[in-house]
Amino acid sequence: MKTDDTFVPGLEGVVASETGISLLDTEQEKIIIRGYDLIDLSKRKTYADLIYLLLEGILPADAERQAVEEQLKSHYELPAAVMDILKLLPEGTHPMDGQRTALSALAGYDEALDDRSLEANKQRAYRILGQLPAITVNSYRILNNQDPVEPDTALPYSANFLYMITGKKPTELEAQIFDRSLLLYSEHEMPNSTFTSRVIASTHSDMYGALSGAVASLKGDLHGGANEAVMHMLEQAQSANDFVDMLKNKLANKEKVMGFGHRVYMKKMDPRAKMMKESLKQLCDLHGDSSLLEMCEAGEKLMAEEKGLYPNLDYYAAPVYWMLGVPIPLYTPIFFSSRTAGLCAHIIEQHDNNRLFRPRVKYTGDRNL
Amino acid sequence: MKTDDTFVPGLEGVVASETGISLLDTEQEKIIIRGYDLIDLSKRKTYADLIYLLLEGILPADAERQAVEEQLKSHYELPAAVMDILKLLPEGTHPMDGQRTALSALAGYDEALDDRSLEANKQRAYRILGQLPAITVNSYRILNNQDPVEPDTALPYSANFLYMITGKKPTELEAQIFDRSLLLYSEHEMPNSTFTSRVIASTHSDMYGALSGAVASLKGDLHGGANEAVMHMLEQAQSANDFVDMLKNKLANKEKVMGFGHRVYMKKMDPRAKMMKESLKQLCDLHGDSSLLEMCEAGEKLMAEEKGLYPNLDYYAAPVYWMLGVPIPLYTPIFFSSRTAGLCAHIIEQHDNNRLFRPRVKYTGDRNL
Ligand SMILES: CC(C)(COP(=O)(O)OP(=O)(O)OC[C@H]1O[C@@H](n2cnc3c(N)ncnc32)[C@H](O)[C@@H]1OP(=O)(O)O)[C@@H](O)C(=O)NCCC(=O)NCCS
Ligand SMILES: CC(C)(COP(=O)(O)OP(=O)(O)OC[C@H]1O[C@@H](n2cnc3c(N)ncnc32)[C@H](O)[C@@H]1OP(=O)(O)O)[C@@H](O)C(=O)NCCC(=O)NCCS
Repeated sequence: MKTDDTFVPGLEGVVASETGISLLDTEQEKIIIRGYDLIDLSKRKTYADLIYLLLEGILPADAERQAVEEQLKSHYELPAAVMDILKLLPEGTHPMDGQRTALSALAGYDEALDDRSLEANKQRAYRILGQLPAITVNSYRILNNQDPVEPDTALPYSANFLYMITGKKPTELEAQIFDRSLLLYSEHEMPNSTFTSRVIASTHSDMYGALSGAVASLKGDLHGGANEAVMHMLEQAQSANDFVDMLKNKLANKEKVMGFGHRVYMKKMDPRAKMMKESLKQLCDLHGDSSLLEMCEAGEKLMAEEKGLYPNLDYYAAPVYWMLGVPIPLYTPIFFSSRTAGLCAHIIEQHDNNRLFRPRVKYTGDRNL
Repeated sequence: MKTDDTFVPGLEGVVASETGISLLDTEQEKIIIRGYDLIDLSKRKTYADLIYLLLEGILPADAERQAVEEQLKSHYELPAAVMDILKLLPEGTHPMDGQRTALSALAGYDEALDDRSLEANKQRAYRILGQLPAITVNSYRILNNQDPVEPDTALPYSANFLYMITGKKPTELEAQIFDRSLLLYSEHEMPNSTFTSRVIASTHSDMYGALSGAVASLKGDLHGGANEAVMHMLEQAQSANDFVDMLKNKLANKEKVMGFGHRVYMKKMDPRAKMMKESLKQLCDLHGDSSLLEMCEAGEKLMAEEKGLYPNLDYYAAPVYWMLGVPIPLYTPIFFSSRTAGLCAHIIEQHDNNRLFRPRVKYTGDRNL
């Protein structure tokens, strides 16, 4: 037990959990997921494989992956009242807040809500993952007075998700790139949102509650919200020069530039960002328009020179989503939907081998006593 | 920076934050709130004083406390759509889940949602505290097909809260005891729910999100849910002997007995529990029925002898709420409502001097690489 008063702001470097799920291995420069390298997986596997790997602990055979796809599809439909709740949210509600409210409401439909056994939790995770495309897309569409899009069960899970977002059947390349983005976002050790959901789950609280907390965490711009913030900057800048000026201004004002830096690999490029940059190149080639790539590369160069800071996944996911036709307010909700696979694995692990999180403080206040 | 792999389950004894808000001072055996001893405050102050103390940093003069009361009352009414959302939740939804869903939905009504300045956050905190009685009571009443109770602005904030719960104007003693329970629940250093909301707030996420996570945390029976679990045991037992047998059985089955133990003062009685025990005595005298007190005392004796464990606040709050006529499913939501004063103080402090919470893990999984 640590009894001294050492205070490490933000728990930097403090080991908060034992986990068999993932590790940022900074020595070997790998993101390890259940023993595999995430970047390697992103070249040969799909998001559905990752769901299986995260929840079942091993990579699926083809038939198993297909069974997962079928299971997710069987849960596509939301309870009608949850759609009605989304419709009641006031205009201007951020889709992250819609997602959080819908997930929170779904708890009431779970007849085995207090059953935290491994099997019940796994079934719950698949169900929630199946429901998330409808929750996510409709949190945006209903609030923007657009008709809800019905899922197309003939498409794979991730292609259907993109279809529901844009209303257009994606090309093979588009579907592949979107799937890769989900795969890359699916799990990443112990970021704030994962930590939040483990802390909540440690009171014996249920999966819906732990996930509601994680949506809230991910919304902040120091975390998932960064991908939307990046796109707002890119959208505002008209050219690579403009963009560089914008970043210089921010640095001069001592503002943080969203999309750069990472607690664990601060001085290196996030390997996931490299993969998304490749996808961005493919999309630029396809559209015969490389302006976003040029802006991003100029920004990347500037930040390396001026601050020794490198892009994280959010930096390159933003322009990729833009070129796929995804509305900006859906960037972070998509990140959350994908990450739910990893979050559920962590919640299940926490419930399975639990100790209540309850740290202490260093008191700096008065003593009027 | 802590770089070794020391893993402390549940972050026991780890200092997670600096704070000027509160401290469990185990040496002096005091719960310090902004420099004052909570137990001492509970003898001479009201919950409204505590709200002011927590949010403003000093105890209010009489006029200031009255101004706080007026401000809270001015926020009693909920947006109609939030009431409609509560009505849409499926039958059987726990009021904690209703509370969480309503708080989550309220984010959309805040026109300055992204303003995390001290002043905006404080106004937000008063508004949410004003809205909580209606959220809490109606989460229960609507789901139980009872008509919503309108607030009575002639009553003080806490007396009105009890009135809305029971539908009956409380006597002076009842109002006093309920107010004391809110005061005792208002703040308690860094329990799981407070930690949850600081972790969420550290991403720059907003107060509604941080509070939604805290409701989820508090719901678990290792935390706030314990008060409901205690009452279910007391209700089931017919006599002190029955109750003692029930506890013996649980201990024999290596089950945890809810309402006993505490991470920080495990081997001593929670000083707040002593205060609630006094209130329970007063209520028993009033009703000429001391059966609940007898059961609780028998349980207390048994647990001390058998396990060296002592009651926490939840143990004595449960029978007090029962005798005040509060429906069991509202015990934890009331705890949350009261604690929102402390939670908001912590969220404000976190926003004001922030570093992102982002710990690490000890990886115990495979390495197939
Ligand atoms: C991710 C992040 C929160 C990690 O930060 P952290 O470990 O808490 O590091 P700090 O915020 O303490 O930053 C350390 C130093 O680097 C600087 N820095 C870090 N990220 C920076 C950024 N994106 N832009 C400018 N400066 C940055 C800080 O200003 C600080 O400098 P100082 O020591 O001179 O004050 C941080 O890099 C950041 O805010 N990035 C932007 C948001 C983002 O993209 N988030 C998505 C992460 S996947
Ligand atoms: C509050 C609580 C979670 C703090 O626990 P913690 O610091 O994580 O302590 P642990 O759960 O590791 O318990 C330490 C030991 O005491 C025992 N213990 C703790 N609280 C117990 C209880 N309420 N009933 C029976 N045994 C208990 C544990 O079984 C454990 O024994 P072991 O070492 O033989 O396994 C714990 O006391 C508890 O679960 N209490 C019941 C729930 C409750 O009332 N919560 C409200 C708190 S305000």
